[in-house]
Amino acid sequence: MADAPILTASAVLDLAQPLPLDGGQSLEGVRVAYETYGALNVDRSNAILICHALTGDQHVASPHPITGKSGWWIRMVGPGLPIDTDRFFIICANVLGGCMGSTGPASPAPDGRPWAMRFPVITIRDMVRAQVALLDALGIAKLHAVVGGSMGGMQALSLAANFPDRTAAALIIASTARHSAQNIAFHEVGRQAIMADPQWQDGDYHGAGNKAGKGPEKGLAVARMAAHITYLSEEGMHEKFGRRLQDREEKTFGFDADFQVESYLRYQGLSFTDRFDANSYLYITRAMDYFDLAEEHGGQLSDAFAGSSARFCLISFDTDWLYPTAESRRIVHALSAAGAPVSFVELSAPFGHDSFLLDVPALDRVVAGFLHQ
Amino acid sequence: MADAPILTASAVLDLAQPLPLDGGQSLEGVRVAYETYGALNVDRSNAILICHALTGDQHVASPHPITGKSGWWIRMVGPGLPIDTDRFFIICANVLGGCMGSTGPASPAPDGRPWAMRFPVITIRDMVRAQVALLDALGIAKLHAVVGGSMGGMQALSLAANFPDRTAAALIIASTARHSAQNIAFHEVGRQAIMADPQWQDGDYHGAGNKAGKGPEKGLAVARMAAHITYLSEEGMHEKFGRRLQDREEKTFGFDADFQVESYLRYQGLSFTDRFDANSYLYITRAMDYFDLAEEHGGQLSDAFAGSSARFCLISFDTDWLYPTAESRRIVHALSAAGAPVSFVELSAPFGHDSFLLDVPALDRVVAGFLHQ
Repeated sequence: MADAPILTASAVLDLAQPLPLDGGQSLEGVRVAYETYGALNVDRSNAILICHALTGDQHVASPHPITGKSGWWIRMVGPGLPIDTDRFFIICANVLGGCMGSTGPASPAPDGRPWAMRFPVITIRDMVRAQVALLDALGIAKLHAVVGGSMGGMQALSLAANFPDRTAAALIIASTARHSAQNIAFHEVGRQAIMADPQWQDGDYHGAGNKAGKGPEKGLAVARMAAHITYLSEEGMHEKFGRRLQDREEKTFGFDADFQVESYLRYQGLSFTDRFDANSYLYITRAMDYFDLAEEHGGQLSDAFAGSSARFCLISFDTDWLYPTAESRRIVHALSAAGAPVSFVELSAPFGHDSFLLDVPALDRVVAGFLHQ
Repeated sequence: MADAPILTASAVLDLAQPLPLDGGQSLEGVRVAYETYGALNVDRSNAILICHALTGDQHVASPHPITGKSGWWIRMVGPGLPIDTDRFFIICANVLGGCMGSTGPASPAPDGRPWAMRFPVITIRDMVRAQVALLDALGIAKLHAVVGGSMGGMQALSLAANFPDRTAAALIIASTARHSAQNIAFHEVGRQAIMADPQWQDGDYHGAGNKAGKGPEKGLAVARMAAHITYLSEEGMHEKFGRRLQDREEKTFGFDADFQVESYLRYQGLSFTDRFDANSYLYITRAMDYFDLAEEHGGQLSDAFAGSSARFCLISFDTDWLYPTAESRRIVHALSAAGAPVSFVELSAPFGHDSFLLDVPALDRVVAGFLHQ
C-alpha cells in the first residue's frame, strides 16, 4: 500500500489556479477543506466522492468539530458498511460557498476582510468545479462513483453531466435536476428571514462586537425552522410529535413552546446557528435555486447526459415532498433517452426527505448493490 | 319588510356581558365589528353566518377599507350568487382577536393602552362565543346555516358542536377538526419570525415613534410568506410561476427577486403588513394551533356532535395539502358515527388550499345546492 498517498482524515487544498465561475468571474485562492476515509488503491480506481447537502459538510463519518456529534452519514460510510471504507477511498469536501473550511462568504477576500456579500454568487456547477479540482490534485482521473443526497445529488448529476469522463457511476438520492417554484419559495422565505434580521447588517456582521458568523442568529434560526418542515413528511411529523405537549400536562394559554413540535423546531433553529454561517446559507440556497440542469444544456435534460458513459442509480422516497419521486423519474427518463444505463427505485420510508440520512435498510442494500458492481 | 331590522352593511356591537374564555378568564367590553348583506325575513330564519379565515375579515363582499380591494368572497356572496343575498341575510363578523374592529390585542385594555401581549390567549371556541353573542344581539335564535372555509370552517364546526341549537346547517370548506403537527410547525415559524423582529418589542410596538400595528413588519412579512406557500399547491405554483424570471432575461447572480415566485412572495409579505396587526397574527395562529375539537369533547370526535341536529356538508380540495381531504373525511366519519346527516365531496381544483377563495365552479354548485335545500 505504499502507493496509497492519503490515509489521513482531514486536509485542505489550496487551488493553484483560479476557479472559473458560471457568473463570469474567476475566483482566486480557493481553498477546499475535505476528509478522506480508507486508502486509494494502486491504480487509483476505487475513489468515491460523496457530495454533501445544503447544511452538511465534509465530516461524513467523523465527529463534527463544533458540535461533537457523529458524522452525518456514519450509518452509511465505514468498514463493512454500504460505502465500504475497507474497499473504497472516500472523499468528501466542504462545498464552495460553505463555512467549514472551504472558501465561502466568511473567508477572507484579497483585502483581508471577509468576503461577506461581495462573494460571487455561485452555482452547483461551480461547486462541482471545486470538487473536480480536488480530484485533479489527488491524482484521481476517474471516480468509481460520485454519490450524493439532496443537494449532494445535484452535484453528482452535475459532475456526471459536465465532467462525463470523471466518474464511472453516479448515485443520486432524494434529489432533483431543477429547483421547483415551491423549492425556490421555501428558500426565499429563509433568505428573507435572514436579511430581515438587523444583525445581518447587509452581510457585514463579522466586525467589531460580533463573533464571526454570529450575526443574524434569529433570522437564521427561523430560516432553519422553515426548511426543517420540508425535510420531514406530514405523516412522519404526526407520528413523531402529533399534538403532544412538551413537558406539561395542559396548554399554557401563552406563547411558550407548548407543543413538542414547537420545541423541536426551536431547538433545530437555535442549534443550527452555532455551526452555520448565515451568508453561506444565502449563497448555497441561491446556488440550489439556480440549479436547472436542463436549462444549462439548452433546455433538454437528456442533452445534459449526451456525453456520459457512467452508470446511474436514482433513489427517491415515497414520503419526500421536497424532491418527490416525480423529479427522480424525470431524470430517469432523460437518462434513458440519452441511452445511459440507469436503475431507479422509489423506497418506502416514513421520514420524508430526511430518509436518506436515516435508518432505511432498503437504502443501504441499494447503495451497496450499486457501488459494489 | 318592516321587520327587517338590519339593511346596513357595516356595524359594531359592544357586548353588554363579559365574554367567558376557554383560558379561564372573562373578557369585558368586547366589541364585535360585522357586516350584513340582504334582509332578515319576518321569522328570522334566513340568516347565514359566514366565518372568515386567519387573515380574512368581515368585508366578505364589500371593499376592504384599507386596501380598497373587493371583498374576499364576492364571487360567492351577492344577489343571485351561491350565497344569495336576495334570499338570505348574511352576517360576517371580524373574529375576536382580529384587527379590523373587533376586540383584539391592538384594542385598548381597561388602562387605555393597547392590550398587546396582555391580551388573553383565545381559542376558536372563544371566537364562536363572540359570534353567538352577536346572533343574540341580532335576535337570531337559529341560523339557516353557518359557513366557513379554513379557520372559518373550524368556527363552523365549533359552533355546530358547542351551540347545537343555533344552526340548522353547517358548511365546512377546506378545513380540519384539529391542527396537525405540520400545521402547528408552519404557524410556529411565522410566530418566531415575528418575535425575532426587534421591532416587535415583546408586542409593545404601539408606542411613540410607531404607527399602530406597524411594528415588526419584516417579521410579519416573513410569516406571511411562509404561510402563503402552504396556501398554494406545488403543482399550482409550478403552473403559475415555474422557474420563470421576473422582468429580466437572465439570472442576475445576485439576491434580488430573480424568479417570479420570489417577487410574488415578497409582494404578498409586504402588502400584508399594511392591513394586519402582528400581535393579532400571533393570537389567531395560536387559537388555530390549540384547536382540536375531539380533545375538547373528551377525545372522541363523534362525541363533539352528539347534541347536534344540524345538516352538515364538508368540501375538500384534492390539491389542498394544508388541510387535506383526509381531515375532512375524518370529520365526515365522526358525523356519521354521531348520526348526523352529512354530505361530503372532494373537489378537483389546481389552487391548493386557496381553492375555496378562487374560481371553482363546482364549489359554487355544491354551496348553492346545500344552502338552498
